[in-house]
Amino acid sequence: MNNSILRVEVIFITKITAHDLAKKQKEISVAEFFERNKHILGFGNPTRALVTSVKEAVDNSLDACEEVGILPEISVTIQNHEDDEECILIIEDNGPGIVKNQIKHIYGRLLYGSRFHAIRQSRGQQGIGISAVVLYGQLTTGKHATITSKISEDMPAVILEIAINTNKNRAETISTSTTHWDKISGTRVEIPLRANFIRGKRFVYDYLKNTSIVNPHARIIYTDNEDESYIFERTSETIPKKSVEIKPHPQGIELGTLIKMGKSSSSRKLSSFLKSDFVSMGNRTTKLVLEKAGLDESLVPKKMNRTDYLALHKAFNKVKIMAPPTDCLSPIGETLIRRSLKQETQEISPEFIITSARPATAYSGNPFQIEVGLVYGGHLPKDSQVKIMRFANRVPLLYQQGGCVITKAISSIDWRRYGLDQKGGKGIPSGPAIIMVHVASTQIPFTSESKEAIADIDEIENEIRLALRNCARNVQRHIRKKDRRKKTKDKFILITKILPEISKKSSNMIGKPQPALEGVITKIMDVIWIEDLIEYEMVKNKPIQTTLVNPNPEENKGGVITKSMIRIANYKSNPQSFNLIALIPEDAIVGEISPKPVEVTKRYLKWKLEPIPPANKQDVIFELAGLQKDDFDENDLYVEDINPGFVIGADKWEGE
Amino acid sequence: MNNSILRVEVIFITKITAHDLAKKQKEISVAEFFERNKHILGFGNPTRALVTSVKEAVDNSLDACEEVGILPEISVTIQNHEDDEECILIIEDNGPGIVKNQIKHIYGRLLYGSRFHAIRQSRGQQGIGISAVVLYGQLTTGKHATITSKISEDMPAVILEIAINTNKNRAETISTSTTHWDKISGTRVEIPLRANFIRGKRFVYDYLKNTSIVNPHARIIYTDNEDESYIFERTSETIPKKSVEIKPHPQGIELGTLIKMGKSSSSRKLSSFLKSDFVSMGNRTTKLVLEKAGLDESLVPKKMNRTDYLALHKAFNKVKIMAPPTDCLSPIGETLIRRSLKQETQEISPEFIITSARPATAYSGNPFQIEVGLVYGGHLPKDSQVKIMRFANRVPLLYQQGGCVITKAISSIDWRRYGLDQKGGKGIPSGPAIIMVHVASTQIPFTSESKEAIADIDEIENEIRLALRNCARNVQRHIRKKDRRKKTKDKFILITKILPEISKKSSNMIGKPQPALEGVITKIMDVIWIEDLIEYEMVKNKPIQTTLVNPNPEENKGGVITKSMIRIANYKSNPQSFNLIALIPEDAIVGEISPKPVEVTKRYLKWKLEPIPPANKQDVIFELAGLQKDDFDENDLYVEDINPGFVIGADKWEGE
Repeated sequence: MNNSILRVEVIFITKITAHDLAKKQKEISVAEFFERNKHILGFGNPTRALVTSVKEAVDNSLDACEEVGILPEISVTIQNHEDDEECILIIEDNGPGIVKNQIKHIYGRLLYGSRFHAIRQSRGQQGIGISAVVLYGQLTTGKHATITSKISEDMPAVILEIAINTNKNRAETISTSTTHWDKISGTRVEIPLRANFIRGKRFVYDYLKNTSIVNPHARIIYTDNEDESYIFERTSETIPKKSVEIKPHPQGIELGTLIKMGKSSSSRKLSSFLKSDFVSMGNRTTKLVLEKAGLDESLVPKKMNRTDYLALHKAFNKVKIMAPPTDCLSPIGETLIRRSLKQETQEISPEFIITSARPATAYSGNPFQIEVGLVYGGHLPKDSQVKIMRFANRVPLLYQQGGCVITKAISSIDWRRYGLDQKGGKGIPSGPAIIMVHVASTQIPFTSESKEAIADIDEIENEIRLALRNCARNVQRHIRKKDRRKKTKDKFILITKILPEISKKSSNMIGKPQPALEGVITKIMDVIWIEDLIEYEMVKNKPIQTTLVNPNPEENKGGVITKSMIRIANYKSNPQSFNLIALIPEDAIVGEISPKPVEVTKRYLKWKLEPIPPANKQDVIFELAGLQKDDFDENDLYVEDINPGFVIGADKWEGE
Repeated sequence: MNNSILRVEVIFITKITAHDLAKKQKEISVAEFFERNKHILGFGNPTRALVTSVKEAVDNSLDACEEVGILPEISVTIQNHEDDEECILIIEDNGPGIVKNQIKHIYGRLLYGSRFHAIRQSRGQQGIGISAVVLYGQLTTGKHATITSKISEDMPAVILEIAINTNKNRAETISTSTTHWDKISGTRVEIPLRANFIRGKRFVYDYLKNTSIVNPHARIIYTDNEDESYIFERTSETIPKKSVEIKPHPQGIELGTLIKMGKSSSSRKLSSFLKSDFVSMGNRTTKLVLEKAGLDESLVPKKMNRTDYLALHKAFNKVKIMAPPTDCLSPIGETLIRRSLKQETQEISPEFIITSARPATAYSGNPFQIEVGLVYGGHLPKDSQVKIMRFANRVPLLYQQGGCVITKAISSIDWRRYGLDQKGGKGIPSGPAIIMVHVASTQIPFTSESKEAIADIDEIENEIRLALRNCARNVQRHIRKKDRRKKTKDKFILITKILPEISKKSSNMIGKPQPALEGVITKIMDVIWIEDLIEYEMVKNKPIQTTLVNPNPEENKGGVITKSMIRIANYKSNPQSFNLIALIPEDAIVGEISPKPVEVTKRYLKWKLEPIPPANKQDVIFELAGLQKDDFDENDLYVEDINPGFVIGADKWEGE
C-alpha cells in the first residue's frame, strides 16, 4: 500500500530534536488541569456533577458549623432546572461565615483551605471541593458564582461575584457589595452550572437523606420546586464532639516528611523537636527512641543529615510508642448506624440488624476507625447482589462502588458460611442483606479528588474485614439462638399443655386428685428460660427538646425512655445462681435499674442474681434514656458462672 | 456520664469566629497535596509504588521515542532490592534526550509537560507521572533522583541530581556534571525509592510483557538480578505512525473553554477564529454556524460577550460538523490484539480468538476508538470469573479493575446468551474466557492521576459494549458455523463411505456394474462445501528484518508469507456461480491472488466465481505478507448472490 508516503513521514519526524520538544514544555496550572480532567473531581457527566456540587457545598457547611459549634441549618435549593440542562444551585447555611478577604481564595482557587494541614477528622481535606464546583459552573455556563457571607450580627453581609482565572488558578472579583441579612452569621453560595436535574435529583435526595441520618444534629431543607420542600429534621440537639487536632504520630511518617519537618522545625534540640512536633512522644519514649537511634538529644534538627534522620526513622519502629489518641476521630456510633439502617429499611421489615465497631487504629500514622452494620431478611430481594452502603467521615459515598476498598473487603469474605450466595466464595454476595460500612479517619485515602471511593490500603481493608466477620458471626449466633429458643419453646408448650391433660385423665381414671406438676415440668424442661420485653415511654418534660416544627411528628422521636424487662424462670430441679450481663448502647444514659447491678460500664450492665428456687421466677429491669424509640429493640444477654448449655435466651459471657 | 466536661468544650468552641478560621486558611502546593495523597498517584503501597514507577518511566521513554521517530530500546533495572524495602530504579532509553534547562522542570515539578496542551494520543498527558516518581522516592528515602541526558552525538551527556521543594513545587538542583556516554542520544533516570520488590516483581514483569506485546516496535530489557536479564525483543521494525496533533472540535467543547479561547485568540474576526482555532471548520460549515448563531463574521472574538458565545456554542450543535480526523489516534490494530491474546494464552490452547474494532468516534469533542478481543475455551478455568485485560493508549492497566468503565461495560452485558455463566445476567461473567479491551483517545478520562482506571463516560461505555456484543455475536456465529460444518461433515462421510458399499454389494448381488455415484452423492448432500487451509512460508531475503540478537529464535517470526487456500466443492445438482468474500487483516499486504478478484479493499477480497459444474471443485488462493506466523490462522469467508443456507463454511455477506 502507501509505503512511500509512510517513509516520507518517517524521515520528517526523525528531524525533531530535544530542542524542539523543549519548546513545547509548559507549566500546567492546577485549575487548568482539573478543568480538563473534571471527571476526576466527580463532574464526569451532568448527573454526577449535580450530586457532587451539592455534596461539596453541604460538606463545607457541615464542617464550618462543627468547627465553631453551631447546630447546622442548611438549605439546598435547585432553581431553573426546567431550562435546558443548566440550573442554579444555592446552598445557604447558618455557619460562622467567611471573612471578606478569604472568600475569593476559598471559592476561587483550587488547593486552598484550612483543613489540609490539620490532622483531625473532617469532611473536606483537600482544599479542592467547593472551588471545583465554581470552576465547573464557570466552565459549563460561562457565568460567575456569587457568595454571600455574614460573620457577625452587627455587620452587614458581603456579596462577592467571582470568576476563576484558570491559567493562574486565582480568583477574579467581578463585583462586591453589601446587604442586610436577617441572620446572625452564615454563608450562601449561588452557582449556575450544567446539570441533569431529571436524572440527578434522586441522587441528591439520597445523598441528603443519608447525610441527615448520620448527622442527626443537622437540619437540612431541600427545595427543587417552588411549592414544596423536603425537610430532613434534626433528631438530636447535641453537636457532635468536635474532633481534636493532633500532631503527626512518629510511626508511619515517611522519612522524607520527617526530614522536612526537622529542617523547618524551630526546636533547637532534637529531644524537644520530638516532644513538641509529634504526638505520643513523652519523655520516656523520646529517650528510648534516641537511644535506639544512637543520636544525642542535643543535636540541632536543622543541622542533622540524612543518615541521622534515617537512624531516627528506623528507631521509631523499634520502640513501642503509644497509639495516637482517638479524639481526633468522630465515629457515627453503633446506635446511629442501627437507626440509619432502620430508616433505610422501614418498608422491608428486616429480620434483624446487627452492628459492629472496631477500636481505632492507624495506617501510616493516620488514625482511623471502622464501623459496620448488617441488615438481614425481610422483604429484601433474595436473588440480587446485597446492597452496599458506604460512608467516609460521615459523608455518604454514592459512586465508584467497584473501585472502593469497602467493596474489596466485602468481596474477599466467604459469605456462603453466613447464609449468603456467592460464586466461588468471592465477589459481592447475593441475598437478602444490606451491608453498611463507615470509615472515619484524619485522612481518608480517597482514590481520587472526587472522594467517591477509598483506596485499598491493607490496614483499612483488614479492619473492615474484621468488623464484618464479627458482624457475620453475630448473625450466625443470632440465628442459632433463635432456632434453639424456638425448639425449646415448642417442647415447653407441648409439656405445659399435654402433661396436665394426661395428669387430669389419669387422675380421673384412678379417682385420685391431680398431683402438682411444676416439679415434673421442671424436671423434663431442665433449663433456665429467659424472656424479655422492651417498651418505650414518651417523656413530656425532657430538658432538651426540639423546638422546630416537624412536618412529620411521628418521626420526631426525642424524649423516649426505653424500658427493658427481663424475666428469668428456673425450670431446673435445684436453685440457680449466676451472673447476668446485658449489653447496652454506648451512647445511652442508664436510668433506673432493679435489682442493683454489681457492675455498670458504658457497654454493659452486670447482675449477680440471688439463687432462684426451682419453678420460680426473677425479674430484672433497666431503663435507658438518650435513645430514640426502636434504637434499642432487642436485648443482647449473656450469662456467667453457669453452664450456658442450660440457659435459653442468653449466651456464654466471654468478656467484651 | 461526663456531661459537665462536654459542656465546657461546647462553650469553648462557640467562641471560634470566622476570623479565627481565616487564620488557618492556607495555600496547598500541588506537590504537597500529592505528597500527602500519594495513593492517588498509584503509590498507595510499596508493591504498587514499584509498578507505578516503572510504568511512568517506561511510558515517558516510549512517548519520547515515538515523538522523534526512534525505535525505542529501553532498559529497566531494579537494584539493591535485597536491602530492606528500599531499592534503586534505573530506566534508560535511546530517545532524544532532554535539554539541560528543562530537566529539573520535567523531573522536579508536578503539572509540567509538553503533552497536556496537545490534542493527540499519547501515554503521558498530565505532566505528573515522572515527577511523581521522583517525589515518592524523595518522600520515602530522603534521597535524590539522578537524571542523565544526552541530546546529540557531538555533545557530552549532562548529569543532574535533583530534589523537589514540595512547599513550592519546584526542583532544586543538588549537583550538575557532564560525562561521556556511548550513545547518540538518550535519557537515564535513577531513582531510589521504597518498594516491595518481592511482591511487585511479578507485576513489573506483567506490565513490561504486555507493554511489549502492544508496542512490538520496542525492545525492552529487564534486569533485576546481576546474572540474567529478560529481553522483550521487538517483533516489528516499523515505528507506529505518529499520531497527529489536532485542534479542538467545536462539538463537545465547554462554553467556558470556548469563551476562554475566544478571549485569548489573536484572530480579529470571528470567522477566522472559527476556521483557524478549530478542526472540521471549513468555509461552508463556518458560514452555517454563524447563520444559526445569528452572529456577524466580522465580530471581534476578544470583544464578544457571554450571550454571543452562548449563541455560538448552541449553534455548534445545530449544524452537522464533520467528525474530528482520526489520525490523532493510534489504535493497536486487530492483528496485534490477536497476537497479544495468542501470546497470553500460549499454554491454554484456546478454541478461538475473536477481535473486533469500532470506528473512531468522540466524547465531549475528544476522539476515541475501541478495540476488543475475546479468547474462548481451551484450558481456561471454567469456574472462575473471566480474565479482563485492559489497555489505554497502548498502556496496560493493572490496578483498579473494579472502578473502570471497561469492567462496567462488560458487567452490563448479559453474557448468558453467549454461553458464559452470570448471576442474574449482570456482573463479571464466569467461564473459560479472556476479554481484552483497548481504549485509544486523545484524552483518556482516567478516574485519577494514577491512570489505572477509566471513568464511566457514557459514550465510551456504549462503544465498548457495541464492540463486545459484536465480538460475542461472532463467537456465537463461530460456534454455529463449526457445529453446522461438523454435522454436514458427518453426513458427508457417512454418504461417501456407505453409499459406495451399498452400491458395491447391490451391484454384486444383481451382477451389474457399479453405477457412477457422484450425481447421487451430490443430490443427497445438496450443498456447496467450502474448505480451507492456511500455510506459512518463511522468506529469507525480506527487505526489513531485525538485526538484533533474539534469545529465542523461535519467537522471531518476521519474514513470513501467509498462504490461504480455499477449495469450493459443488455438491448441488446444477452449476453454481456466486461471489466469495474473504476478510483479511487491515495491516496485511496482499500478494499473489488467484483467480483474479473483482474487488480488493483493506478489509477484504472479493471474487466473482465462474459457474462450477455439479460434482466439480474450484480453488481460490491468496497470499498475505507483513504478518507473523499465526497472525492469520483462520479464514473468515462470506458468500453473496446465492442462498447462504446451501453453503457450508461461509456466511451470508452483509457488507462491512
